[in-house]
Amino acid sequence: MTSVITLLTDYGLEDGYVAACHGVIAATAPQARVIDVCHLVPSGDVRRGAVILAQTIPYLPPGVHIGAVDPGAGGARRAVAVEAGGRVFVGPDNGLLSWAVHASGGPEAAYEISNDEHFLRPVSPTFHGRDVFSPVAGRLCCGLRPSDLGPELPLDRLVSLPAPTSVRREGAVEGEVVSVDRYGNTQLSIAASDLAALGVRAGDTLGVWMGRRQHAVPYRETYAAVPPGELVAFADSAGLVAIAVNGGDAAQRLGLPPGAHVRLSPTP
Amino acid sequence: MTSVITLLTDYGLEDGYVAACHGVIAATAPQARVIDVCHLVPSGDVRRGAVILAQTIPYLPPGVHIGAVDPGAGGARRAVAVEAGGRVFVGPDNGLLSWAVHASGGPEAAYEISNDEHFLRPVSPTFHGRDVFSPVAGRLCCGLRPSDLGPELPLDRLVSLPAPTSVRREGAVEGEVVSVDRYGNTQLSIAASDLAALGVRAGDTLGVWMGRRQHAVPYRETYAAVPPGELVAFADSAGLVAIAVNGGDAAQRLGLPPGAHVRLSPTP
Amino acid sequence: MTSVITLLTDYGLEDGYVAACHGVIAATAPQARVIDVCHLVPSGDVRRGAVILAQTIPYLPPGVHIGAVDPGAGGARRAVAVEAGGRVFVGPDNGLLSWAVHASGGPEAAYEISNDEHFLRPVSPTFHGRDVFSPVAGRLCCGLRPSDLGPELPLDRLVSLPAPTSVRREGAVEGEVVSVDRYGNTQLSIAASDLAALGVRAGDTLGVWMGRRQHAVPYRETYAAVPPGELVAFADSAGLVAIAVNGGDAAQRLGLPPGAHVRLSPTP
Repeated sequence: MTSVITLLTDYGLEDGYVAACHGVIAATAPQARVIDVCHLVPSGDVRRGAVILAQTIPYLPPGVHIGAVDPGAGGARRAVAVEAGGRVFVGPDNGLLSWAVHASGGPEAAYEISNDEHFLRPVSPTFHGRDVFSPVAGRLCCGLRPSDLGPELPLDRLVSLPAPTSVRREGAVEGEVVSVDRYGNTQLSIAASDLAALGVRAGDTLGVWMGRRQHAVPYRETYAAVPPGELVAFADSAGLVAIAVNGGDAAQRLGLPPGAHVRLSPTP
Repeated sequence: MTSVITLLTDYGLEDGYVAACHGVIAATAPQARVIDVCHLVPSGDVRRGAVILAQTIPYLPPGVHIGAVDPGAGGARRAVAVEAGGRVFVGPDNGLLSWAVHASGGPEAAYEISNDEHFLRPVSPTFHGRDVFSPVAGRLCCGLRPSDLGPELPLDRLVSLPAPTSVRREGAVEGEVVSVDRYGNTQLSIAASDLAALGVRAGDTLGVWMGRRQHAVPYRETYAAVPPGELVAFADSAGLVAIAVNGGDAAQRLGLPPGAHVRLSPTP
Repeated sequence: MTSVITLLTDYGLEDGYVAACHGVIAATAPQARVIDVCHLVPSGDVRRGAVILAQTIPYLPPGVHIGAVDPGAGGARRAVAVEAGGRVFVGPDNGLLSWAVHASGGPEAAYEISNDEHFLRPVSPTFHGRDVFSPVAGRLCCGLRPSDLGPELPLDRLVSLPAPTSVRREGAVEGEVVSVDRYGNTQLSIAASDLAALGVRAGDTLGVWMGRRQHAVPYRETYAAVPPGELVAFADSAGLVAIAVNGGDAAQRLGLPPGAHVRLSPTP
């Protein structure tokens, strides 16, 4: 039994959708503390939602974690509750939860959410966040067990997003842009520890290859270590390599959208 | 006595205005749980605020519900507290609260908020949300009765917004665009039950007339029932007919702003 | 010992950064009530963050107040905890906190935050909000004393932003644009009381000089006192003179960015 519910959606903040979920949770589990993870996931962008949830989850108290980025709502996709590392993840089985589940130690048990006695009725086919996930999360906070939600699912049938690639090859590391944050900082799928394994240290210079373009970028502890307006690479707050412009927007400067291929190598 | 306060404003999130209200509430009613309904109501758009509040209120626990979209703040409009269905609505008497009051069963009693001993002082003429509505809501949460706020008002003197029209005529239903959400889903004033009364069922095709343009649109349970990029109509999470593009923006595609006239008819 | 923590950042709402801070606070001080002051401070805009915090602080319950607009994070700037008026301000020593500290009566004691036993580890050089300020704030809520955080600092070594200028001269007042809010209302550094001292009263007309342009603007109690679309000056909710357009955007109309020089004089 826990008292924290977290909420990640693509509902935006211009409507009352998030508030409706908060209201249902408050009515179902008045004692629960609700933490909004993010509601500005781009509409239907499951991958972006998965990145945000996975990178935030280590800093959230164990609880019930709702994810609702659900372009297939009302269609054939299952709703699931997945137990992992003392947490329960609730949402569509479309991969949204998969990276956060992995970051929590991997799935221990999973259940289809099908027992509609815990739902609001009628269930709107387009708003499972309000009518299914929120009341179920509230009840889980009040002592309901995930196994009460519906039949157990084999763990290997859960939908997983393919993890962003990162490969060490010939003294370099290849990866891709995982996400771009508000500052335009461009986070790569390359772990800072992979650079360390190549002998790269803060203070060195990196060769950054994007297609046929190449930049020599200082690798530092933080963006503030270079003059304003200059490119810099650093180990970001998720332990991944990020490329930034101090006081500027690296994604815009470099034209690097999520998914773009990047290769990093030490520069002599 | 209740312990939930909800807050709908057009204050935006770029300033500290919402936080000032939260702070005043926390000081006045430390035990209250505050739920933000929406703060991105377009500036001064009373009608949009009224739609959001009315469609969210069924999912909010009974409490004190502040609405502050108030282009006439500091002018002649009254501030009111309206009791309806076990809730108390607090805000300007400009129609903002009227649809939510109606959705809560209609007004049972109304009071002008004029007793300034419950206000913060001095009262800023442009920030009644902070100086009037928030402290009053906090005190209502602590046992103050609405009748302590000022003189009772005849219910028929409360300002109401005209309800969006919806008319069945010659085997069709005519209505208007009520709102457009973050996804570009276009919500009409036409209840799904009105289509049902015309014999339209999920799986049928609708004729959608907008001025001289006409589209044949599949009527389905959810947008996910059509291929990505295609138009679809469905009963939305408020029980109204909405027109969407699966994975796209219907309002943009169709050029349908709030208020636009739309006519729906069964297609043989 | 207090139970309120407030949070002002430039982290935006598109990522999980704010949620990570909320999570760390919830884990460290489960009993604390968290109030979000603002997270949409423009990236790295210390001055704008300082304005918002200073103008909101009078309405926030005394507590621990985190400010994290920190373009120099990970660089040489100190992290500090400053006691003022029963509050503790926590953040970078870059001037962000200075106006709010001043608005709370001025600094009474200040400590460098250097005792890393209260930090999350490892500390990300780019995310002190999550790894330093949040856990420290949580612990301050649980009884830790600011003096436990590190060595005391002489108050005159704290970084202060220069206050916006406001000067009375030859029957006029000169100042600058302090901030522009969501509505386009343009807040000046000129106190309403300075206009009052010149004999200006609501109902009068102001001469507003911006460089070589001059407007005659009605000075009223509120923007609603002039017809829609017209310029109006009034004493805003922070006690400063603001220039607005009723139902419109004065900053856009007048082309007045923060920092622009403005001169006000009574018009006969």
